[in-house]
Amino acid sequence: MTNKKIKAAVNGYGIIGKRVADAIKLQPDMELVGVADVESDYRVKAAVVLGLPIYASLPEKSNEMKDAGIPIAGNLDDLLKQIDIIVDCTPKGIGAKNLELYKKAGVKVIYQGDEKHSLTGHSFVAQANYETALGLDATRVVSCNTTSTVRTLTALRNADLLKKARGVLIRRATDPWESDHSGIMNTVVPEPHIPSHQGPDAQTVVPELDVITMAVKASHTQTHNHYWVVELTHDASRDEVLAAFNAASRIAFIRMSDGIVALNSTIELMKDLGRPRGDMWEVALWEDVLTVNGNEVYYTYQVYNEAIVVPESIDAICALIGTVKDGSESIRITDEVIGMRKEFLYE
Amino acid sequence: MTNKKIKAAVNGYGIIGKRVADAIKLQPDMELVGVADVESDYRVKAAVVLGLPIYASLPEKSNEMKDAGIPIAGNLDDLLKQIDIIVDCTPKGIGAKNLELYKKAGVKVIYQGDEKHSLTGHSFVAQANYETALGLDATRVVSCNTTSTVRTLTALRNADLLKKARGVLIRRATDPWESDHSGIMNTVVPEPHIPSHQGPDAQTVVPELDVITMAVKASHTQTHNHYWVVELTHDASRDEVLAAFNAASRIAFIRMSDGIVALNSTIELMKDLGRPRGDMWEVALWEDVLTVNGNEVYYTYQVYNEAIVVPESIDAICALIGTVKDGSESIRITDEVIGMRKEFLYE
Amino acid sequence: MTNKKIKAAVNGYGIIGKRVADAIKLQPDMELVGVADVESDYRVKAAVVLGLPIYASLPEKSNEMKDAGIPIAGNLDDLLKQIDIIVDCTPKGIGAKNLELYKKAGVKVIYQGDEKHSLTGHSFVAQANYETALGLDATRVVSCNTTSTVRTLTALRNADLLKKARGVLIRRATDPWESDHSGIMNTVVPEPHIPSHQGPDAQTVVPELDVITMAVKASHTQTHNHYWVVELTHDASRDEVLAAFNAASRIAFIRMSDGIVALNSTIELMKDLGRPRGDMWEVALWEDVLTVNGNEVYYTYQVYNEAIVVPESIDAICALIGTVKDGSESIRITDEVIGMRKEFLYE
Amino acid sequence: MTNKKIKAAVNGYGIIGKRVADAIKLQPDMELVGVADVESDYRVKAAVVLGLPIYASLPEKSNEMKDAGIPIAGNLDDLLKQIDIIVDCTPKGIGAKNLELYKKAGVKVIYQGDEKHSLTGHSFVAQANYETALGLDATRVVSCNTTSTVRTLTALRNADLLKKARGVLIRRATDPWESDHSGIMNTVVPEPHIPSHQGPDAQTVVPELDVITMAVKASHTQTHNHYWVVELTHDASRDEVLAAFNAASRIAFIRMSDGIVALNSTIELMKDLGRPRGDMWEVALWEDVLTVNGNEVYYTYQVYNEAIVVPESIDAICALIGTVKDGSESIRITDEVIGMRKEFLYE
Repeated sequence: MTNKKIKAAVNGYGIIGKRVADAIKLQPDMELVGVADVESDYRVKAAVVLGLPIYASLPEKSNEMKDAGIPIAGNLDDLLKQIDIIVDCTPKGIGAKNLELYKKAGVKVIYQGDEKHSLTGHSFVAQANYETALGLDATRVVSCNTTSTVRTLTALRNADLLKKARGVLIRRATDPWESDHSGIMNTVVPEPHIPSHQGPDAQTVVPELDVITMAVKASHTQTHNHYWVVELTHDASRDEVLAAFNAASRIAFIRMSDGIVALNSTIELMKDLGRPRGDMWEVALWEDVLTVNGNEVYYTYQVYNEAIVVPESIDAICALIGTVKDGSESIRITDEVIGMRKEFLYE
Repeated sequence: MTNKKIKAAVNGYGIIGKRVADAIKLQPDMELVGVADVESDYRVKAAVVLGLPIYASLPEKSNEMKDAGIPIAGNLDDLLKQIDIIVDCTPKGIGAKNLELYKKAGVKVIYQGDEKHSLTGHSFVAQANYETALGLDATRVVSCNTTSTVRTLTALRNADLLKKARGVLIRRATDPWESDHSGIMNTVVPEPHIPSHQGPDAQTVVPELDVITMAVKASHTQTHNHYWVVELTHDASRDEVLAAFNAASRIAFIRMSDGIVALNSTIELMKDLGRPRGDMWEVALWEDVLTVNGNEVYYTYQVYNEAIVVPESIDAICALIGTVKDGSESIRITDEVIGMRKEFLYE
Repeated sequence: MTNKKIKAAVNGYGIIGKRVADAIKLQPDMELVGVADVESDYRVKAAVVLGLPIYASLPEKSNEMKDAGIPIAGNLDDLLKQIDIIVDCTPKGIGAKNLELYKKAGVKVIYQGDEKHSLTGHSFVAQANYETALGLDATRVVSCNTTSTVRTLTALRNADLLKKARGVLIRRATDPWESDHSGIMNTVVPEPHIPSHQGPDAQTVVPELDVITMAVKASHTQTHNHYWVVELTHDASRDEVLAAFNAASRIAFIRMSDGIVALNSTIELMKDLGRPRGDMWEVALWEDVLTVNGNEVYYTYQVYNEAIVVPESIDAICALIGTVKDGSESIRITDEVIGMRKEFLYE
Repeated sequence: MTNKKIKAAVNGYGIIGKRVADAIKLQPDMELVGVADVESDYRVKAAVVLGLPIYASLPEKSNEMKDAGIPIAGNLDDLLKQIDIIVDCTPKGIGAKNLELYKKAGVKVIYQGDEKHSLTGHSFVAQANYETALGLDATRVVSCNTTSTVRTLTALRNADLLKKARGVLIRRATDPWESDHSGIMNTVVPEPHIPSHQGPDAQTVVPELDVITMAVKASHTQTHNHYWVVELTHDASRDEVLAAFNAASRIAFIRMSDGIVALNSTIELMKDLGRPRGDMWEVALWEDVLTVNGNEVYYTYQVYNEAIVVPESIDAICALIGTVKDGSESIRITDEVIGMRKEFLYE
C-alpha cells in the first residue's frame, strides 16, 4: 500500500451506489471524491445533508438539480478528471454506455451485476478470483445471488467436496423503498425459464462449477433465500461440510434455535448490531438446518441483496488499482474496516 | 354401483370440510346427510343459508349454536346413526379423538392429512393406491403437498422415468380468510428441519419413492408452489417427460406464454371458468418452463391447497364403501362430475 | 317489458367486463350477443371455454387472436351491427375514443367510472338518479368507491339525516390477478392530493352532497375499506341511523360478533354463499361498529371493487333502453336475478 | 444540571427498550447501568456483542440465560440497587406487576403506553405537560399513536386554531421482526369499536382536547399513517396552519414532490441519513398534501411507532429526576443529542 490514497467515485447513488460510497469513505487508503446522479429527490438531498460532493451524471440534468436546491460540484466529466477509479452503479444498460467515457478519461471502472460479463470480459468475486483482476482496467462484480452462490460453492470446492449443485432461489420481489412499480402482491412469480441466469453467471467467475439454478420471486421486499441440493464428491459428515463453510470468508452461521427463524430475523439483528443501514454483508447460513445424507447435503441461507456486493466492490477497487496483491489480504483488510463477522453472526 | 345412495356426512365445516360437503352433494350416488361443527360464526350461518342440515360436533356447543340462531338438527351422535361414512375434517388432533366414536357407531371414516398415518394405518392418493383401500374402515387422504407430490412422481414412475426426486416446497403462509393468527409479513420462513415431512409422508402411500423435500413459508395466502429436481432412470427427451405427466390424471398443463405467469394467475382463471369457490383440483404444471437436461428434469407446479384433496376424498369414499372396484373408473366418474380438466387447464 | 330481448354486448373482457357479461347472461330480458377484446391470453381462452362469442375490439388484433387458437366471430364493427347497447369496459381513455364508433352504429353505450363525466354528461347510480337516465344514448356508471359513497350518503339523505360527510378511503393497491405492475409492498401510499376525486365524482350524481374524501392505497389486493365521519342534521339515535341504511337497497349489514372481522372475512363468506367469482355487490356495513355521538355518526364499510358496479350497469342498460321506467322496480328485478341480499349478508 | 450522572436502566430489551437504552447511552448526563430481560435469543446476544451489562428480569430465568452463553451481571434486584430510575419496557401488563418492586427499591420509573394511565396517575408527552411530571416517582409515556396525536393537536391548540379533531389511524399490523404471531395478510382489519382508545388516551395528557379516533390495521409492518379532519376555531389560511405545526417541536415536514410518496419512502430516507436502526423520532407531516377548506383542515402524517416515544422517554427521565425544570429546554437538549431534525426532514 502506498501513502497516496486511491481517488474513487460512484456513478449512480442508488441502492448499491450509496452503500459503496459509504464503504469507500471508511477505507483508510481511499478517498471518495464525489458521487454522480441524475435525480433531485430525497435520496440526493440526503446525500447533501451528509456532505457528499454531488455531480450531475448527465449535463442536461444539472440545472434541474440546481433548481431543486442541490449544490452541484460539476458534471460527470469534471468528476472523471479527478479520480483513478469509478464504481458504476447506474441502472441496467446505462453503465455500458458510459464505458467509452471512462476509457477516454483514463479512469478504471467497476461495474455491477446488472451489466453483462462481455462488457468487461472479467467478472469478480473476491474469494474466488481476486488475483485474476489485478491491474485490469475494468471488472464486473457479479450480482448478489451469484456472489452468494460463488462464495458458498467455492467453499465446498476448496474442501474438495463439490460435485454438482442444484439451487432454488427465492428472490425478494422489489426493493423496500419502491412504492410504484414492480411490486407483486400475495403471490409467487416463477421465472419463465429454467435454468435461471445465476448458474451460468457463476460460471463466468468459476467456469468449472456444475451448477443449475431455478428462480422465483416471492411477496417480500428484503433479502433472498436460497435452497441447495449439493452432490458431494464422497459421503461426508455434517462436521466436514460445516468446516468447509467455516473456513471460507464472508459466510457466517445463524441458528433457528437462537430465534433466527425467518428472513426478517436477521434484518432486526443487523439493526441491533448497529450496522449502517442495517446491512448484512455475510451469507447467513442456517447451521442447525443443514443436513447431510450420504453424498448429498441440503442447506438454506439468506442473501442481503442490497449489501452483499459492497465488500466485493471495495476489493475490486484494490485489485484493479493493484495496491494489494493478495486476495485474502484484501478481504482481511476490507472486512476488518467494515466490521464483517466471522463464524457466527451474533456471538 | 347399487341404487342405494351412500349416506355421507362431514365433521368439521372448515376449509376442506365445506368443499368436501359441496362435492358430496354433486355426486349422483351419494347423499349429504349433514355437516357437524362447533362454531356459530358466519361460516356456519352461510351453511344455513345454503340449506345444509347442521349438527353440533360437541353436545356442549349445541345451546350456544341455537342461541346464535342456527337451527341444530341434532348432535354428532344423532348424525352418526344415519350415515355409512363420515369425512372428518376437524382440526389437527381432534379427529384422532373421534375414532372410537365412529367405530362404536359402525361408521367408516376418511381422515385428512393433518392426522397421522398411524391412526388409520392406510394413507390414500387415488391415482397411486385406490385398490388397497377397498373395503377398509378408515383411511387418510394425505395433505395437499403430499398429494401433489405423489400424483406427479407416480406419473414419472409409471413411465419408468423416476430415479430420485428432490423438491423445494414454497408454501402459502396461512389461509386467505385468516386475519388474526399465523400470518407472516414481508418475510420468508424456512422450516426448521430438512428434510421436511412431505417426503416421508409420500412414502406412506408409495414406499418405493426416493424423495427428499425442503419446505418454506412465503408471504402469500393462496396455493403452494413446488420446484423439483428429478433424476431420471435414463437420458430422456422433453416430450417423453411431458407425455408421462399427460398420461396421468389430475395434472393439467399451464403456460407462461398464455399469461399464466404467477400463482395468482390461475386463481383468476378459476373464477373465469366459473369454478365453485374458485377451486383448482388439478396440479397445474408449467409446460413451457419444464426443462430436461440429460438425465435430469426440472419443473415447477402449483398446488391449490384448499381444494386439491377434495376429489381424492370423494374417491376415498367410493373405495371404502366399495361401490367402485377400479381406481381409474372412480377417478373418471369423480372428475366428470366436478368438471376436472385434462391436458390443459383452459383449452 | 316487451317480449323482445335487449341485444347487448361488452367491449373489454377485463375485471368489470367479464362480470357484466355474466350478469347480462342471467337477465331474462337481455341477450349477450358477444364480447370484444384485444388479448389472446388465458382470460379470453377461458371465455372460449365458456362458449362466449368473441370479437376483436381492434381489427389489427384479429389475426393474432386467431393464431392463438381463439375462434373470432368478427370485429367490433360486426358486433355493433347486431346490438342495441354496449357496455364499454375498456381501459381508461380507450372508451372515449370508441364513442364516435358507437354513435355511428346507432348503439347506446354504458361507460365505467374510469371515463370522465364530461364524456357522456350523465353519471349513474341506480339508487340515486335512475330516472334521469331514461332514454339517454349514453351514461357512465361511476367507480366502485363513488358508487358506495352515493349509495350510503343517499340513504342518510333520504332519511333527512345528512348534513356533511368526511371520508377516508383505504383502497386496495391493485387487482388480485396482477403480478407485474402497480403492486405496492409493505407500505401505505397516500394520494398526493386532498380532497381526492371521489367526493366531486359523487357530486356528478347528487350535486347537493357536502362531501370531502381522502384516499390512500394499502398493501392488499381485494376490496376497499371506507371510514366516515358524518355530521347529521340533528342529534339522532343509533337505531334511526341504522334504519336509514336498512331502508336503502344494496347496503347490507355485517357484524364483528359473527366473525366478520376484516376485509378477507367477507371474501371467504362470498365463496361460502356460492357467489359467482366470489362477488359481493352489496356495500357491507359493520352494524356493530357504527357509533352515534350527538349529531355525529362514525361508521366503516367494505366495497368489493370488482363487483359493486355490476348491478348498476344492468340497471343502466334498463334505463337507457327504457324497458323499466321506475328505478326501484329495475333495482328489484336486477337484485332478484343475481341474488343480492338484503338487511344482513348471511342471515 | 449537576455533575453527577443520572443512573438509569431499562427493563425489557425489546422494540422500545433497546432504543431507549441506545438513547440513554448518548446522553451526557446519564449513565446506562444495565438492561434486564428474560430471553436468551439473538436479541440479547446482540446486546452482549454491544457490551451492555445484562441482568435477568426474573431470577428463575438467570440459569437459562447463563446456559445460553449470556454473561449475567445479576438479577433485577441487583440492578435496582445501583440506579435512580428505570424505564420499564416489558410487555403489556408485566410492568404493572413490577411497580411494588421499584417502589420498595426507591427507584423512579417510566412506563410505556401499554400500561394503563391509572397505574401512575400521570401520562406524559414532553411538548404538552413536561412540567407536571417534575419530581414525580412515576409517569407513563403514552403510546406512539397517542404521542403523535398530542404533538400535532397541541401544535394547533397552541396557535388557538383547534376546535375539534376526528382522526382515522391506519396502523401497521405487527412489528417487522415478527414471523409467527399477529401477522395479517392481504387484508385490512378494522378495530371492533369506534371510538378507538387513542382519543381518550390523548385526553389523559390534555383533557381539553375534543378528539375522536377510529383505528384500523393494514397489511404492512412499519409505521402508522394518520388522516385527520380538524375543525378550526376560525377560517384560516394554509400558511397559518403550517406555521402552527412548524412552531412545534418534533414535527417535521416531508413532501410528495421530493419523492416521499409512501410510508416506505421515509424508511429508506432514515437509512440514507445514517439514523441508528433507521429510526424516525419526528412526526413526518406531508406539507404539500395538507389542505385548508374554510374552517376545516385535512392532513396526513406518518408515525414511526418503534421510535417516536424514545425522545419522550429521555425527557421523562429528566422531568422525574428534576435535572431540567423547563420542558422546552429538556426537549432542546434531547433533540440536539440524538439529532432530531426541524422543519424539513431532509433539507
